[in-house]
Amino acid sequence: MKAVRLHQYDERPRVEDIAEPEVTGPFDVIVRIGGAGLCRTDLHIIEGQWAEKSGVELPYVLGHENAGWVSAVGSAVTNVDVGDTVIVHPLITCGLCRACRDGNDMHCENGAFPGIDSDGGFAEYLKTGARSVVKLDASLAPADVAALADAGLTAYHAAKKAASLLYPGTRAVVIGAGGLGHIGIQSLRALTPAQLIVVDRSEQALKLAEECGAHQTVVADGTQVDQVLERTGGHGAEVVVDFVGEGGALEDAVKMLCRAGSHFVIGYGGTVQVSAIDIISTEINVVGNLVGTYNDLAELMTLAAEGQVTLHTQTYPLRAVNDAIDDLDHGRVQGRGILIPEGAA
Amino acid sequence: MKAVRLHQYDERPRVEDIAEPEVTGPFDVIVRIGGAGLCRTDLHIIEGQWAEKSGVELPYVLGHENAGWVSAVGSAVTNVDVGDTVIVHPLITCGLCRACRDGNDMHCENGAFPGIDSDGGFAEYLKTGARSVVKLDASLAPADVAALADAGLTAYHAAKKAASLLYPGTRAVVIGAGGLGHIGIQSLRALTPAQLIVVDRSEQALKLAEECGAHQTVVADGTQVDQVLERTGGHGAEVVVDFVGEGGALEDAVKMLCRAGSHFVIGYGGTVQVSAIDIISTEINVVGNLVGTYNDLAELMTLAAEGQVTLHTQTYPLRAVNDAIDDLDHGRVQGRGILIPEGAA
Amino acid sequence: MKAVRLHQYDERPRVEDIAEPEVTGPFDVIVRIGGAGLCRTDLHIIEGQWAEKSGVELPYVLGHENAGWVSAVGSAVTNVDVGDTVIVHPLITCGLCRACRDGNDMHCENGAFPGIDSDGGFAEYLKTGARSVVKLDASLAPADVAALADAGLTAYHAAKKAASLLYPGTRAVVIGAGGLGHIGIQSLRALTPAQLIVVDRSEQALKLAEECGAHQTVVADGTQVDQVLERTGGHGAEVVVDFVGEGGALEDAVKMLCRAGSHFVIGYGGTVQVSAIDIISTEINVVGNLVGTYNDLAELMTLAAEGQVTLHTQTYPLRAVNDAIDDLDHGRVQGRGILIPEGAA
Amino acid sequence: MKAVRLHQYDERPRVEDIAEPEVTGPFDVIVRIGGAGLCRTDLHIIEGQWAEKSGVELPYVLGHENAGWVSAVGSAVTNVDVGDTVIVHPLITCGLCRACRDGNDMHCENGAFPGIDSDGGFAEYLKTGARSVVKLDASLAPADVAALADAGLTAYHAAKKAASLLYPGTRAVVIGAGGLGHIGIQSLRALTPAQLIVVDRSEQALKLAEECGAHQTVVADGTQVDQVLERTGGHGAEVVVDFVGEGGALEDAVKMLCRAGSHFVIGYGGTVQVSAIDIISTEINVVGNLVGTYNDLAELMTLAAEGQVTLHTQTYPLRAVNDAIDDLDHGRVQGRGILIPEGAA
Repeated sequence: MKAVRLHQYDERPRVEDIAEPEVTGPFDVIVRIGGAGLCRTDLHIIEGQWAEKSGVELPYVLGHENAGWVSAVGSAVTNVDVGDTVIVHPLITCGLCRACRDGNDMHCENGAFPGIDSDGGFAEYLKTGARSVVKLDASLAPADVAALADAGLTAYHAAKKAASLLYPGTRAVVIGAGGLGHIGIQSLRALTPAQLIVVDRSEQALKLAEECGAHQTVVADGTQVDQVLERTGGHGAEVVVDFVGEGGALEDAVKMLCRAGSHFVIGYGGTVQVSAIDIISTEINVVGNLVGTYNDLAELMTLAAEGQVTLHTQTYPLRAVNDAIDDLDHGRVQGRGILIPEGAA
Repeated sequence: MKAVRLHQYDERPRVEDIAEPEVTGPFDVIVRIGGAGLCRTDLHIIEGQWAEKSGVELPYVLGHENAGWVSAVGSAVTNVDVGDTVIVHPLITCGLCRACRDGNDMHCENGAFPGIDSDGGFAEYLKTGARSVVKLDASLAPADVAALADAGLTAYHAAKKAASLLYPGTRAVVIGAGGLGHIGIQSLRALTPAQLIVVDRSEQALKLAEECGAHQTVVADGTQVDQVLERTGGHGAEVVVDFVGEGGALEDAVKMLCRAGSHFVIGYGGTVQVSAIDIISTEINVVGNLVGTYNDLAELMTLAAEGQVTLHTQTYPLRAVNDAIDDLDHGRVQGRGILIPEGAA
Repeated sequence: MKAVRLHQYDERPRVEDIAEPEVTGPFDVIVRIGGAGLCRTDLHIIEGQWAEKSGVELPYVLGHENAGWVSAVGSAVTNVDVGDTVIVHPLITCGLCRACRDGNDMHCENGAFPGIDSDGGFAEYLKTGARSVVKLDASLAPADVAALADAGLTAYHAAKKAASLLYPGTRAVVIGAGGLGHIGIQSLRALTPAQLIVVDRSEQALKLAEECGAHQTVVADGTQVDQVLERTGGHGAEVVVDFVGEGGALEDAVKMLCRAGSHFVIGYGGTVQVSAIDIISTEINVVGNLVGTYNDLAELMTLAAEGQVTLHTQTYPLRAVNDAIDDLDHGRVQGRGILIPEGAA
Repeated sequence: MKAVRLHQYDERPRVEDIAEPEVTGPFDVIVRIGGAGLCRTDLHIIEGQWAEKSGVELPYVLGHENAGWVSAVGSAVTNVDVGDTVIVHPLITCGLCRACRDGNDMHCENGAFPGIDSDGGFAEYLKTGARSVVKLDASLAPADVAALADAGLTAYHAAKKAASLLYPGTRAVVIGAGGLGHIGIQSLRALTPAQLIVVDRSEQALKLAEECGAHQTVVADGTQVDQVLERTGGHGAEVVVDFVGEGGALEDAVKMLCRAGSHFVIGYGGTVQVSAIDIISTEINVVGNLVGTYNDLAELMTLAAEGQVTLHTQTYPLRAVNDAIDDLDHGRVQGRGILIPEGAA
């Protein structure tokens, strides 16, 4: 089959012919890929930033945001049949450790992460597990939702955690209205009655934020903290959901909080740095956020089927992966880039 | 009456005669002091560290950990009678703002803090409000519990927040087995089934920790992180309750956490500094903690009356306040120093 | 002032001149009534059904759903000024008992309930307390929101409790789309992403339900349980919010639940009757619901100001109270009947 | 192997030789039984009360509370090895449905229940699944903990749900200090700081309750409701955990509740019957309780290994099953009867 493999860090991945994955274990599921999201993390992988963390052996197939159709299943798989349309949770989990038994798939002690530490979905076929496939509503096409598998799932997960703090009259600030942020905004609108104030440097991103349901937008021109404080009557916001995590966003987030407020960290790059006295005297929280659970993904698919969460995408044939990478690297992608194997539909 | 007033920052407070406080509002309560805790915060106040934050006008009466007997009440007070034995919540709150209406007294938008920003309890009489007095069980004497009013309440509050994360088989690390820490240990034992691992530099403090119910103790000799990891099977602890907050404790705390673990910050002095990628890739939380609610104080008094929480104290006559301060400053106080006005019993 | 007083059970209340209420305590607030909701409970009071429970002495002024303008305040009132537009929480609470300190105003150990056990708001002026008044947004008129003070507050409170169980893909059945039900539907829409299935005998009520945001409606023609099961894929609903509570609704509710589902009881008249083996083998819950908290009322006013919750009302001059009662008794009121004192605006 | 099979309802089960179970699926686990608890449910099964619900085909092997040693595993089992000591969660679950993914094993949509609807553990060997085995601490012997697998797990599960409502100063009433009740008492002591008031008809059971940690005991002589109200200052208890569920216990439970209290139903036989107005005017809850989750069982094993929960047992050789049944039926068993296959140790 055609697949996009990385052979050397800091080199372009190659489109080449490799053997199709096969069912070898009772819980294996092979998915014919209908769409695979290209993510900034893929650029970081190519640059070698994840080499040590993932420990993956080159060459391997990239692609960790996948959706498609089940093409083969292991002997013990009972939840999907060949032909089912599915989105793929990014982790393959054991189902047996404490975290899995609590539904916290992303903390599985024995998980694998195709596209990061093993062959992923920039290919015609992907091997995953029965615990990782969510059946899609007939209204949803794989290429339209693939990027919700990781980026969207992370945004939804944070929104869901924040939702328990948000009641009518509260304010949630969203920093960053990009790929994750615009899913976060839609998820917050679907899950909470809070007023949403979205902060971004780009006026275009803020327009998208408004379409996604932002109640107010603030251009991050250096006055964003003051503007948020002013729009919250000087109190600050109960929740700040930070999809940027660098370049001043982490500092801004803390300054935008009200007493007992919570800073949800999703973006990364920078360092959280707050004096303990400031943390305790206002009793604020800093909350880490990882990709969501399997159930989170199923819920997000419900919102997608209901039309409450939609993705802006730009599709590329799988063989044009390096064009897509160039476009992403140069800021030319509108929404998320999706790779589609030839013949998939 | 006799009272201990601060006239100048960086000077010793003076014991002098001032007018007794009087009921002027319908919700006022005057408490005849039976005991008032001396706290490291009092030293910081004297040094002027709180001058700007509190905005208090000198001279004023110190003392924010108070217990005694009701000696007079305003016209609208219905919850206590003259003669009742009470402990005093450190804040005087409005009862009308959203925080008060949710029970979060410490976030009252209109609160006063006697001993910090107005006249406190190093005196024969203290003026507080009806919303701040908790009636004591007959078995409890004011001098024995006074220091639970602020230090103990803070420790209990953090323990209670942590308790919701602690089930059989989880581990809570307590950093610092001093004044707050030893109440924290007792509170965690009363509220949770978790295994408690207590870390402190002092072997004597660790002995006290064991008496308070610690399951394991670790000398903070530079190997404490490794020791905690080893004792948790390499996983780290679900909860770290940090009563130190400086001198490496904040860094240690994060390293001692398991995935999805929570670092409760109570001590202060240092700066929390964690890269965003470390926060998100393990999905950890940093949780600020302030003094507890009124209901927290009532619950802590229940534990005290049941003998589940006890304080080690060393008493001084009120007039010997400067001896007590010297002893505290030079590490000569066993447990908490308590000032007792002459004639109080 | 003009007021509507009940002199004898089972007799019509009389419109008569009585003395205006006056400030006597430091926390008293006098409200000039702009609108007071007429409720089925008022009919029950007149019939004497509440005589024993309330213990009220006749004659007294009816009316427990009130809104208007502050006309006088006690010496210690700090949260409202004369002239402020307010809605009135139905209880006058002490602010000092455990329930009040936890925000659970409706469980105050020392509460009074004007219109039930003391003089209410079918009058030109009402005496309440500082803890009972919520300031209104400039966009809201007292007569438009008065009925949210009790009926609406009860519906919102139940919806908020249910919301924690409702995530995308869950189903909430609302039984009864009348006065409370239509607020419940709007509240559930504002607070949750659940699919709402509304059951009522009246097609007209179901039309209103759809306008309020119901996703599906079911005519209660005897097949309603089967229809709900069919529409939930045979599983039943995670939540049933029962605004009827008699005439078979309680039995239906339990049959409509999925495993681990929750039956929220708001309406009354009948008896919950479920064999223990049915309760445990499916692990279902029966959840009682009373009027909401002060904070609930503030949140509901936020939703009202945002236009997310609106009431259908039909106004009457205060002097026409008995016409309003007749209309209510004979099912001729569209939405809620609101009494307006002459000259109020 | 030797096994105890039921051939006809209302006849004694027979000890006979049948084929050993074998691994046929990748996730199968065969357990050599070290002990199997005999439960009142077994009597009900023999009487045919479960015939319709379980749909089991006769003859089949009884026994749903099992512990022992792993003797064989399927190809995909990774969490236990042959020779491991294990306790067996009563359900075999799919791991794929929403309930399983949330950790709610007992609501698995595809579960089997050995001993109820398929061959159980009154035998030398039992076939279960990888998701059902919890490894035991070296200090625990199968025969000592077997009865915790179902009866104990149910009691622990209810205690854990109740724990979130219980803070210092609250009261939990336990009705019934028998097989489940005495585990419930120990679990409540381990998990909560509440005062425990235990109600039972038998003075001997109340003695056991005291040994298990009850703070107060009440003989159920007809005055039990009044006694509980008196011991709770007239308020009633925040929580009633009802292990009886018939013969007046259900009615008592509701009368013993304080406002906003919760009645946890575990025992069955009777019918919950409360007028809706009583449910809403006090805002009480009725909470169904089923057997616990896998994680609950793991936590309970932690408490058992710590010595915080211990079972009183009386052992019988497997071949003496009918003696054990007679003893249970005639109230001659002290604690729980445990069947032990010959040669197991």
